[in-house]
Amino acid sequence: MIIDVHGHYTTAPKALEEWRNRQIAGIKDPSVKPKPSELKISDDELRDSIVNNQLKLMKERGSDLTVFSPRASFMAHHIGDFEVSSTWAAICNELCFRVSKLFPDNFMGVAMLPQSPGVDPKTCIPEIEKCIKEYGFVGINLNPDPSGGHWTSPPLSDRHWYPIYEKMVELDIPAMIHVSTSCNACFHTTGSHYLNADTTAFMQCLTSDLFKDFPKLRFLIPHGGGAVPYHWGRFRGLAQEMKKPLLKDHLLNNIFFDTCVYHQPGIDLLTKVIPVENVLFASEMIGAVRGIDPETGFYYDDTKRYIEGATTLSAEDRYKIYEGNARRVFPRLDAALKAQGK
Amino acid sequence: MIIDVHGHYTTAPKALEEWRNRQIAGIKDPSVKPKPSELKISDDELRDSIVNNQLKLMKERGSDLTVFSPRASFMAHHIGDFEVSSTWAAICNELCFRVSKLFPDNFMGVAMLPQSPGVDPKTCIPEIEKCIKEYGFVGINLNPDPSGGHWTSPPLSDRHWYPIYEKMVELDIPAMIHVSTSCNACFHTTGSHYLNADTTAFMQCLTSDLFKDFPKLRFLIPHGGGAVPYHWGRFRGLAQEMKKPLLKDHLLNNIFFDTCVYHQPGIDLLTKVIPVENVLFASEMIGAVRGIDPETGFYYDDTKRYIEGATTLSAEDRYKIYEGNARRVFPRLDAALKAQGK
Repeated sequence: MIIDVHGHYTTAPKALEEWRNRQIAGIKDPSVKPKPSELKISDDELRDSIVNNQLKLMKERGSDLTVFSPRASFMAHHIGDFEVSSTWAAICNELCFRVSKLFPDNFMGVAMLPQSPGVDPKTCIPEIEKCIKEYGFVGINLNPDPSGGHWTSPPLSDRHWYPIYEKMVELDIPAMIHVSTSCNACFHTTGSHYLNADTTAFMQCLTSDLFKDFPKLRFLIPHGGGAVPYHWGRFRGLAQEMKKPLLKDHLLNNIFFDTCVYHQPGIDLLTKVIPVENVLFASEMIGAVRGIDPETGFYYDDTKRYIEGATTLSAEDRYKIYEGNARRVFPRLDAALKAQGK
Repeated sequence: MIIDVHGHYTTAPKALEEWRNRQIAGIKDPSVKPKPSELKISDDELRDSIVNNQLKLMKERGSDLTVFSPRASFMAHHIGDFEVSSTWAAICNELCFRVSKLFPDNFMGVAMLPQSPGVDPKTCIPEIEKCIKEYGFVGINLNPDPSGGHWTSPPLSDRHWYPIYEKMVELDIPAMIHVSTSCNACFHTTGSHYLNADTTAFMQCLTSDLFKDFPKLRFLIPHGGGAVPYHWGRFRGLAQEMKKPLLKDHLLNNIFFDTCVYHQPGIDLLTKVIPVENVLFASEMIGAVRGIDPETGFYYDDTKRYIEGATTLSAEDRYKIYEGNARRVFPRLDAALKAQGK
């Protein structure tokens, strides 16, 4: 079984974006603000948007199940206030819930949070509760920078974030640490902000003792961990200078990396440097890089090819990357699969 | 000949730091502000600080010449105003100049700039002129974020920076793109801010047509290019989506990476993915990571071992990485070496 732990609903029907544009316009001009009920997307439209996109590629490439969350770049937590984010998150999560109901064998949901810059993260808890308990979602996406590239929130190790972590531990769910669109002109969203955030989040954990306070907390760092595996010697050396334990003891019981690295040498490095127990298969397909690599003739984001091509991996390693680790990091996914007899 | 293109004067005598602390105190209380002439460091003190540190390691590890600039984390352009930065840069550059005079066979200078947040970069030009023409320096360090982690300046592709680029082209010098200390609690200076800045600078170039305006401009991106080589497929794919030329044509006539990557798998990836013509040997020794790697028994920052250990490199490749590329990217270094009969 092949589980892709990083998929976003990037192909949602246009009506969603149109509703969001009206919501944004409504921040300045409340007379145009739409009601949630004004968004009408039928099951057939949802089905079409999935069957002709993600599901088609999953079948072609040979993956079975995608852990599916609202489009990351559209979260845009920096826009509006908590009420705006809250309404928007509820709508986006509900669509992913409906997709998971339409395709129960192929999609399980992960929640976007109604974060807003300067707002206490504990305000996200009702949405988390709803998504996990009512929608059957298996995790959350946590944005370490709701300001969108201005980095005005405290580091992830700060007690500011603890209410979220307490809820995560209680519900036994992991968080993917995933920023959204950059509104800082210095940072290209998918080319630098995403990767920078991955590196930043890892280093925030490294310099802290967060996982002493939360030994069962689990973070999934996407995009192959940003710059981290490539600079693994640097990070080992920095931890050593700070008299921290070896990274495997200090962080690797709690931090995991996905395989959204879009060329063979990158995946080769990732799987050589990071223990296979900490690597989870993912593609973020139909995401930042949708083209075909002229050097290979295949899609850049067809990451399964690189896992297959990584010559140092054994069959047992591939099982862990494709399935075993995901079942361990997402216990609710494992439970849901077992309930399906898988 | 082995040229290390990335060394900072991290071992300057304590008197320098004490003077700087008084300068910083003087921002609030002008009565304690020191004069530059109050900093007294003898040639013997300079000599000791080099002979027992950088020069000792250069001899032990087998490098010949270090391209040497003021300590990057001490630039701290966010502190004070242009006058503060200007005085501080002049002092730091003069010390590197004196080191280069004391050890002309082993050190050549690169200038720190008197940048200050919100101040027009053209104010840096007199310091550049002095360092290149009077001190015989061979390049500059350009900080893309003088705010220290708040990223309030325009991207490097903006005309804001053009006065610096015009001067660089006129003098035929490259710039290493190097940030300084982070004063944003989200970013650890050497663990995330440095690497993020490297990735960010690369992406700012990728999304722009900067090198159409300045076909001879040369940027050296340190720390192995941040996250860039590890995600080379992502960057190739993003350029493709934006209808940019292939990266080798779009950027690699102008952008170069150093080898400050502190483990073998990282250097293996760098030298496999990036054309060897674009890789310059460097260690940033006695810098961010000063310890001994327990996995190898050698210093993390002894990067020559990794270049030697990279099995895909030929002798000709190593010549380019150690010497040939540095002579091409730093023409004034090449000219100075030739004047020394080398």
